Amino acid sequence: MEIEFIRSLRKRLPHSPQLAVGPGDDAAILHPDGSVVTCDLLCDGTHFSVGTDSALSIGRKTLAVNLSDLAAMAAQPIAAFLAVALPRDEASIAENLLDGMLPLAEQFDVALAGGDTNVWDGRLVVSITLIGRCPHQPLLRSGAKPGDHLLVTGVLGGSRMGKHFDFTPRIAEALYLQKHHTLHAGIDCSDGLSLDAARLAEESGCGVAIDLPAIPLSGAAREMASKDDTLSATDRALGDGEDFELLLAVPADEAKALIAAQPLATPLTKIGTFIEAPGLWQGTENFRPLPVTGYEHRI
Amino acid sequence: MEIEFIRSLRKRLPHSPQLAVGPGDDAAILHPDGSVVTCDLLCDGTHFSVGTDSALSIGRKTLAVNLSDLAAMAAQPIAAFLAVALPRDEASIAENLLDGMLPLAEQFDVALAGGDTNVWDGRLVVSITLIGRCPHQPLLRSGAKPGDHLLVTGVLGGSRMGKHFDFTPRIAEALYLQKHHTLHAGIDCSDGLSLDAARLAEESGCGVAIDLPAIPLSGAAREMASKDDTLSATDRALGDGEDFELLLAVPADEAKALIAAQPLATPLTKIGTFIEAPGLWQGTENFRPLPVTGYEHRI
Repeated sequence: MEIEFIRSLRKRLPHSPQLAVGPGDDAAILHPDGSVVTCDLLCDGTHFSVGTDSALSIGRKTLAVNLSDLAAMAAQPIAAFLAVALPRDEASIAENLLDGMLPLAEQFDVALAGGDTNVWDGRLVVSITLIGRCPHQPLLRSGAKPGDHLLVTGVLGGSRMGKHFDFTPRIAEALYLQKHHTLHAGIDCSDGLSLDAARLAEESGCGVAIDLPAIPLSGAAREMASKDDTLSATDRALGDGEDFELLLAVPADEAKALIAAQPLATPLTKIGTFIEAPGLWQGTENFRPLPVTGYEHRI
Repeated sequence: MEIEFIRSLRKRLPHSPQLAVGPGDDAAILHPDGSVVTCDLLCDGTHFSVGTDSALSIGRKTLAVNLSDLAAMAAQPIAAFLAVALPRDEASIAENLLDGMLPLAEQFDVALAGGDTNVWDGRLVVSITLIGRCPHQPLLRSGAKPGDHLLVTGVLGGSRMGKHFDFTPRIAEALYLQKHHTLHAGIDCSDGLSLDAARLAEESGCGVAIDLPAIPLSGAAREMASKDDTLSATDRALGDGEDFELLLAVPADEAKALIAAQPLATPLTKIGTFIEAPGLWQGTENFRPLPVTGYEHRI
C-alpha cells in the first residue's frame, strides 16, 4: 500500500525541464549542470533507536545511506546538507551525530555544508540531502535489457545485526565499474533484494528472474535463520533490506568477464537474469513468480 | 544558548574546497559550479500545528521559507527535494502538503524533484532542500560596511497572525535589486529584525544601529500590541520573527536613490545604519545598545 501511495504522490509532480532525471531513480539529476541529488530522512524508532543505538552510529548511517544512493547513480559525492529535529532534553546528541558523520565525510571527500538545527518536543529525526556529480555516464535504473545478468556486490541479509550501521557505501566500486565496464542499469539494494530487483526491472520495462541458490548470504542472515523457524537465510536476503549493496544489470558477456575477473575488493556475484516477461521471478529456466517481500518506504 | 550551541557545531565542520560559501550564510554555494543550496526543516508544534493549521498551509510554508533563503542570496530557485516523516494515522496528509507546494513551485518555476517519504509513530516533520543559481553576484551576509543604510522590504511583526503561512518569498525583489543596484549584503528576516540585523552586522565585521521609529509595522503587529500590555508593535517587529522580508545593506547614495524611486511592488524602507562599533544599537546618533530578542533556531 505504501508503495502505491508514494507512486500516486510521484505522479502528481509536474514534469519539469530542470530535471534530466526526475523522481523514481536513486537520485535526481538536474539539467543542465548535471548535479546529482538525493535525500534520505531517518526517524527514531524506524531506522534507529535512540537509547539503544549510539548517536555516532546514527550519524554515520544517515550519511552512509545517502552515499549509497549516489553510488547507485555512479556519482561522486560533493556536499551534504544536514537537517535535524533534536529532542529537547537531548539536544547535545547533535555533536555525536556530527562525530559519526565526519570520518565518513572525510573518507568520501564530502563537504558537510550546513543545514538546519531544530529542537522540539518529539523524537530524533535526521535528514541529509547529498549532492554529487557523475564523472562518467550516470547509472540509471532504467537501462536493463532482457538477457542482461543481475549482479550484486557483497553479501545480503541480516543487516540489522550490525551492517546497517557500519556498511561501506559502494561509491568506489560503482565509479570503477562505470569507468571500465558497460553497465546497463543499477540500484542500491536498500529495501530488500526482491523489492529492489523488481524496481530495477520495472523501471527498465522488463522482468527479472532471481536464481535463489546463487544469492550470496551473509553470516548474519544464516545466524538469524538458525534462530527463527519462519524465515530462511534466503528469505532474509530477499526481504530484510538495508544491505546497501549494488544491484547491477550487465550485458551477458561483460558480466561473465567481470565475474571471472572479480576486480573489486568485495565479491561480485551473478544472482539472476533479466527477462522479457514483466515482474519478479525465480529460477534459471521455467521461471516461477517470486513474491516481493522488501521493506517499502521510499519515494 | 541555542545560538552558542549551533555555533559550536558549525566550528566543527572542516573547511572544504567544495564550498565557495559555507555554513553561516542564508545558503551554501558549491564550488566550482555555483549551486546555491539551502535546507529548512519544519516540525509540528514548533513551526506549525497539525490539527490547527491546514496541511496546505504547512506544505506551502515549508517551500516558502526555503525560497526566502534563496531570495536572501539573490538566487533563482531550480529544484526542491522534500523529505517527510508522516504520522502513521495521517499519512494521507502528504497529498495536501504537496497541494500546498505545487502553486508556489509553479509561481517560482521550481521543480519538485522527489525526496523521501517515511511513515512513523511521531509527529509531522517536513524538510526541504532547495537548489538554485545566482544569475548575478551572490548576495552574502558579509559585505556590509559602516555608513551603509539598512533597508527592509515590506512590513514587520505579528507574522503568526497569518503572514508566516501566506508570505511572498522576495525572490523577484532580490533578483531585481541585485541586477540593477549595488547591494553590499543581505539576509532574510526570519528570526526577528533584531537578531537578523545583528547577524548581518556580525558577519560583516561591523555594527548596526536601528532607528526604531522608522520600522514599518504591520497591521498584525499593531493589533497584537493593542491586546497585550507587555509587547509594543515595535517589540513585535524586533522579536517576532517569520516576516521573511529582505534586510539589505546598501551604500548610502544608492539607498537614498532606491528609497526615493521605490522600484518594487512592496515598500522599501530605511530603518538603520551600519556603524563601526560591533553589536546591535538603537538611535540615529548617540547610539544606545539594543537587546537581541529574536527567535533562535538556525544554523
